[in-house]
Formats: sequence, C-alpha cells, structure tokens
Amino acid sequence: MEANNNNPLILVTNDDGIHAPGLERLIEMAGKIGKVVAVAPDQGRSGMSHAITIRYPLRIKKISEEKDCSLYACSGTPADCVKIAINQILDHKPDIVLSGINHGSNSSISVLYSGTMAAALEGGLHGVPSIGLSVTDHSSRPDFSASVLYGEKIIKNTLLNGLPEGVCLNVNFPKLPVEQIRGIKICRQARGIWIEEFDKRIDPQSREYFWLTGYFDNYEPDAEDTDEWALKNHYVSVVPIRIDFSDLNAMDKLTSAYAKAIT
Amino acid sequence: MEANNNNPLILVTNDDGIHAPGLERLIEMAGKIGKVVAVAPDQGRSGMSHAITIRYPLRIKKISEEKDCSLYACSGTPADCVKIAINQILDHKPDIVLSGINHGSNSSISVLYSGTMAAALEGGLHGVPSIGLSVTDHSSRPDFSASVLYGEKIIKNTLLNGLPEGVCLNVNFPKLPVEQIRGIKICRQARGIWIEEFDKRIDPQSREYFWLTGYFDNYEPDAEDTDEWALKNHYVSVVPIRIDFSDLNAMDKLTSAYAKAIT
Repeated sequence: MEANNNNPLILVTNDDGIHAPGLERLIEMAGKIGKVVAVAPDQGRSGMSHAITIRYPLRIKKISEEKDCSLYACSGTPADCVKIAINQILDHKPDIVLSGINHGSNSSISVLYSGTMAAALEGGLHGVPSIGLSVTDHSSRPDFSASVLYGEKIIKNTLLNGLPEGVCLNVNFPKLPVEQIRGIKICRQARGIWIEEFDKRIDPQSREYFWLTGYFDNYEPDAEDTDEWALKNHYVSVVPIRIDFSDLNAMDKLTSAYAKAIT
Repeated sequence: MEANNNNPLILVTNDDGIHAPGLERLIEMAGKIGKVVAVAPDQGRSGMSHAITIRYPLRIKKISEEKDCSLYACSGTPADCVKIAINQILDHKPDIVLSGINHGSNSSISVLYSGTMAAALEGGLHGVPSIGLSVTDHSSRPDFSASVLYGEKIIKNTLLNGLPEGVCLNVNFPKLPVEQIRGIKICRQARGIWIEEFDKRIDPQSREYFWLTGYFDNYEPDAEDTDEWALKNHYVSVVPIRIDFSDLNAMDKLTSAYAKAIT
C-alpha cells in the first residue's frame, strides 16, 4: 500500500470517543503533517472490536470545521466511523488512517478486542495504510510526550514508504518519559490470554450479575521478538497485523488430513 | 490443540441469539456427539465481532437443563458467552467450542465482523479446538440438512484429530440441497471488501440518519483456493483462521526499513 506524502489527507478516529485527550493529541500531531478529518464515536466504545452497527441507523454531527481540520461525532463504533468517513464525509480516500491515541495498551491478543485496532484494520481493508496507536496507561490524562515524539516518526515513515500489502500497524507506547525510551522495535503479537475473574455481585432485587475483570497471562515473557517484551524493556512496539486471518500452513495440514479422513 | 472423543463436553454458542433455529440445529447435532452446554446471547448480536461487555455487568439465565444438555441465555456478546461459560458455568474446559449455525455467510472478510467467528476465536484463545459454522442463507428458516450432514463430519474429525496450534475453523455451507454439494474444501479467506452504500434518510425531526448497507466485492473471483470460489462451486468451505494476527513476513520487511529510516 503506497501513500502520499504531499499534504496528505489524514483520517483520524479512536475508540475512547470524541472527548478523549488521546484523540486531541493525535489530531494535533496529524495536523502538523497534513489535512485532518477526524470522525470519532460520540461516546467511549472501548472493547467493541470490529463491531458494526446494523440494527440501528448511524448519525453523524459536525462538531467543528477549520481550514485543515474538521471534527465529526458518529453514533457508531470505530469501524463504523471509518466506513462512514470514507463513504459519506471525505471527498476522496484518505492517504492514511490513524486511530488513537488509545488510553490503555492494545498489545498481544488485546488486538482482537480493540476498537482502536479494528478502525485501523478497516482502513487496511479499504487499501489505506493504517495505524492504531495506544499508550500503556489507562488513566484519563496520560503523559503523551513520548507517544507524540515516536508516533510522528512512525506516521511520517508510513506516509513515505507505505506498508506491505494487507498489513496495518499496531503501535504501543510504554508509559515512560521520553528519555527512558530505547527506540522502536518491530515485533510480533505475544502469545497469552486474559484470565477472566468474573466479579459476581447481587443486585437490590437479589439477582446475580457479573463484572468482567481479569489479568493478562503472557505465555512467553522471555521472547524478545514480542510486543510484550518490547514494552517491558522500554521500547515502542510496532506489530504488523494482517487483514487476512487465514493460516496458509494450517491449510496444507488440514488438506491432507481431510483427504484421508472424509470425502 | 488436542481434543477428547469420548463423550466430549461441547460448548455451543452463536450470534443470532438463543431463539435462532441455527442454534437449535447445532445443539441437536452436538447432542448426538457428546454432552452439550449452550450459552448464547439473549438477543441477536450479529456483526458484534469480538466485542466484550465492559461498561455493563453480564447476566446469565438458565433456560433449560436436561441430563446431557443445558441451555443458558447471556446478556452479552458471543465472546462474552464463551468467557462466562468457561469461567462460571462449566466445571472444566470444554473439549470443543461450536458457534452457529449462523444464518448468513461468514466467508472472506466477513470473518472480521462476525460474532459467530469471534466466539470460535475466543475458544481458540482458551486453547480449545473451535469451529464457527454458517450457512449462506440469511432467512429465518434456512434448510440446514446439508449443514448438519457436513457439519457433523467436520466436528467429528476435529474431535478426533484436534486442530493445528493457534488455529480455529471458519466453516461455511452453500445454500444448496445435500445432493448438489460436491464435498469439503480447505480454503483461504478470499480478498475483497464490502462496498458500503449508506442509505441516507430524514427522520420526522428533519435530521439525517444512515443505514449501513452494501455488497461484497470479491477481488479474486477466479482464485480456486478461496472460500468464495468454493461456495460458488458448491463446496463446503473450511478456512483455518489464526488467533495470532501478526504478519511475520512484514516484520522482516519493516525491521530493515526502520533500521534505515529511524532510530
């Protein structure tokens, strides 16, 4: 996927919603590089993955419009935001899609649950180089200085060089001051799982309900080529994510297994 | 991932909700093979992808309980259903997770949007061999006879042989009578995109709203190794789907590009 480096059109979105400081910082950052159109959910839509809105209609509202920066709120999910931006708001396809800066990590398998990364994947499906950016800090006011410094390098590099076909980037910034960051590391998604610990409670009508809580169990904490290792060792992690989920090696194995087993 | 073939514990879920005929047929089919616990959304949750419920608590309700088959409704998404089943309902990890039978295709990139397939991916994350099953018929009463015949073969084969590590199966059945089906084909996800055609309308308060509609554009209609080709040519398509979204080839390319470009 190639990109345009001359006053590029930048589509910005996120999953924390239109009021998130991370969106504001990403818009600022993008505004120094090109023309920005931001279309973000009108409320927080974390953990929405690649959900799309099909049972309800979508609404969009223009919040502000300046010469090189417009901002829209959309009633849908992050994936909806990218779809409606490309189809109804933008005059032409954006040169890059940026999603974030997410408040909280999207490393390892969190990529599957992440609305931030789904928006980037949606950009990738449309053939646009796309990047999801997240800082490993869930607070409402993270320190974005390192994210901005390294994010800008990654965005500019992507605009200059494009991305391999069918790939978008999952970028995570460690929660550290700039001077402690050791650089950018290209990684793979660490293997692991969220260990759920449902918090069971009883409501005033004596009925059970459950809050989803849990912690991440990294299956390979010592693997130096993973995003989890990079983040723990003070690197910005960059994972190339495929929009094609097929496993070609498994295809060969299954083809021979099925040829023997069933016809 | 290995599986147990001796009265296996089968977790069944879907995204069309507890009342969908496709769920009923899958429970019936699974009931002939092992002990079934079904935990399905209490309403239709199509297009929810891998969304999880974090802003609201979850509720579960036992609908029915027989010796070898229990049915629960869950207020959450398909991915929530698998999580809460494994953590709160089942005594031990299931031997297989089955999701479906979805009313409507989940071939090609629809895997990204599909709640059915997200439930299978969630099973895969938990190390359980997992299969999403869909019939390419959106109607409320599809003909499931071919789905049941071929689905049973695939489920039994998976219980017997397990699946390659980190892989789950995306199975789609063509909308055809049994005698017209040519067999099972292991495939990859076809490249393509949903071309959105937002249907813009005006509400009684004179405000715009948009319905998400569109059609699928297959970028490679002649590629015989794709699921779209298989379905059009009267095969049951089986695509192995990775739970690791990293692109290892792209890692190499990006590592050398970044080594030159930025430090």
